[in-house]
Amino acid sequence: MSAQTDFVQLGHGSGGQMMKRIIDEVFLEAFGSPELLAGNDAGVADLPASSDRIAMSTDSFVVTPQFFPGGDIGRLAVCGTVNDVATSGARPLYLSCGFILEEGYPLADLRRICRSMAQTAQETGVRIITGDTKVVERGKADGVYINTAGVGAVPQGIDLSGANCQPGDVVLVSGTLGDHGIAVMSQREGLAFSTPIVSDAAPLNHLIAAVLNAAPRTRCFRDPTRGGLASTLNEFAQASGVVITVDEDAVPVKPEVRGACEMLGYDVLQVANEGKMVAVVPAEEAQAALAAMRASKYGEDAAIIGEVSPCLGADARRSSANWPSMNRADTASDQAPDADIPAIPTGSVRVRTPWGSTRILDMLVGEQLPRIC
Amino acid sequence: MSAQTDFVQLGHGSGGQMMKRIIDEVFLEAFGSPELLAGNDAGVADLPASSDRIAMSTDSFVVTPQFFPGGDIGRLAVCGTVNDVATSGARPLYLSCGFILEEGYPLADLRRICRSMAQTAQETGVRIITGDTKVVERGKADGVYINTAGVGAVPQGIDLSGANCQPGDVVLVSGTLGDHGIAVMSQREGLAFSTPIVSDAAPLNHLIAAVLNAAPRTRCFRDPTRGGLASTLNEFAQASGVVITVDEDAVPVKPEVRGACEMLGYDVLQVANEGKMVAVVPAEEAQAALAAMRASKYGEDAAIIGEVSPCLGADARRSSANWPSMNRADTASDQAPDADIPAIPTGSVRVRTPWGSTRILDMLVGEQLPRIC
Repeated sequence: MSAQTDFVQLGHGSGGQMMKRIIDEVFLEAFGSPELLAGNDAGVADLPASSDRIAMSTDSFVVTPQFFPGGDIGRLAVCGTVNDVATSGARPLYLSCGFILEEGYPLADLRRICRSMAQTAQETGVRIITGDTKVVERGKADGVYINTAGVGAVPQGIDLSGANCQPGDVVLVSGTLGDHGIAVMSQREGLAFSTPIVSDAAPLNHLIAAVLNAAPRTRCFRDPTRGGLASTLNEFAQASGVVITVDEDAVPVKPEVRGACEMLGYDVLQVANEGKMVAVVPAEEAQAALAAMRASKYGEDAAIIGEVSPCLGADARRSSANWPSMNRADTASDQAPDADIPAIPTGSVRVRTPWGSTRILDMLVGEQLPRIC
Repeated sequence: MSAQTDFVQLGHGSGGQMMKRIIDEVFLEAFGSPELLAGNDAGVADLPASSDRIAMSTDSFVVTPQFFPGGDIGRLAVCGTVNDVATSGARPLYLSCGFILEEGYPLADLRRICRSMAQTAQETGVRIITGDTKVVERGKADGVYINTAGVGAVPQGIDLSGANCQPGDVVLVSGTLGDHGIAVMSQREGLAFSTPIVSDAAPLNHLIAAVLNAAPRTRCFRDPTRGGLASTLNEFAQASGVVITVDEDAVPVKPEVRGACEMLGYDVLQVANEGKMVAVVPAEEAQAALAAMRASKYGEDAAIIGEVSPCLGADARRSSANWPSMNRADTASDQAPDADIPAIPTGSVRVRTPWGSTRILDMLVGEQLPRIC
């Protein structure tokens, strides 16, 4: 018996429910370390024989095309990993990069990508300290794939996690949503909009540092990449056992991106971003966090978009494993088996529409925009 | 004008001279951090606000087939990076892993690979703490590519580098050469030998720790992967400005591997290994290092294979950039421009043949066995 489900499908890379399943059932099943089970975008771990902690994260980049309005695969490869390391509250320090090159790829393009990586690394203040090159035959890759891994130093006392959200907290986003996904898709499909749509690819480590300084009790950060805001908030809601409600009207979206999404049938809240940060902060620090975002480069359009409330009825934390971007509540600090706990209704994220109604905001099921990063 | 040299060629991934060129001219040109320019297999860097140093390394694995006698891509992916981190003298601690999956890849094979990674990680004592999954369409990869990056803690006082070799030093290898390359190649090409040839894929961090304990003045370690012993020794010779001479008779090679190499026209000294370590130690510590290797798992066939001597005539250190496996002498600690220094004759590695003659052992020029790791 060999069903379609026995094979890798594009949806397994979506950032949505199918990706969550392969992570749970294959990767966490094999590798379930406490750092992975904690389910954040970066693993935080001790250095033995010292009090230092490091944060580590990795991403492979397979975006097509490699050059698009507002960025390229090189800028993505640096921003993506720097941002993931920074979400832990760490100061990103060092990057590795591994290139998988297809035979026949133009060296001029590779040079352009490397210059972009170097420039972006300089903007972030991280250094590329080790690397690797592999070449595969024509037809065994698609030009160039890049993996970056990043390491940062976690300051003492910092302990951010998607499992930290509490009723009463406030949700912020650092700017307009959907720009990256729509920019890449329109470049790929040759769609032209009257106003050009440009990727938001940007490093956010300085913005995060500014928010942490202004709002030291910040619960967590996450960059809403594949799966968009929908995946990020569902991960937070499941890891923390809370309901998150978003005001659709409050979510900043560029008119041209909104128009493209309506035309193409996408929910902008599920579209990938590469230069935006979601933060959850206690209500009393929300204004300070917002001001810090708005004063930061890449944060001028920041907004408060929602709030956290308790689960209704018998709702409770739901076990939800993650790799590295989906959460699992049963971490080392929370080992209680949850067999007796009734499942939380799917849709612990809700959207208040401009018409006063409420809808459930779920994770993507399959794949929406393959190879967006 | 668009010559063939304007495009990526298979030889750019060979571990030999062409790879050195793309590293020098593309990657180091863009990213030239001091850690990269130091030219070792792992970058060693400080953690600010502490005296801790970390070592970081990365490798992507594109081997075909993914399962071969003696190992699989998962075991390689853990061993390769753990070994590279360990060559710095660091204790490897944490790994990231990034999967690039081709649509349609069997999940059963992916599970098998992950179990192998988990088992190998356990053997090494490292933990996988973060990961990433990307899926590309059919025909845009070859089943599965895996990147791992590794981080280790460097003990105080340890400062290993390929640039540390000194005349009078002794060269050791931890076991038989050529096993991995010939095992993968014969599996791929469907060649059958009377005695099956099995990959040596193995983690060597415990062996390295034992050698460092027994021979604390060890100059450097390197695992002779792509490009084989030839690349490793040429890198050492160029970085240190020395001549290295190998006794061909002393190099351990399994008879069946030697036979296969003769039949296929390969120089076994240029064939890839995945579970061997080369060490350069001061003569007075050579016997202690040898005994430590032989007492270690995976080191029973260790041997002393050569020695280091001064460059002849006007020879001197040659600038030779590296990413991460080729050396460059002009690191932070050696900033003198070498414009006035005559180039060392190529072939600073020599082999004494069993017949008493001497030949130059050069790096591979192009590609010998593509996608061996």
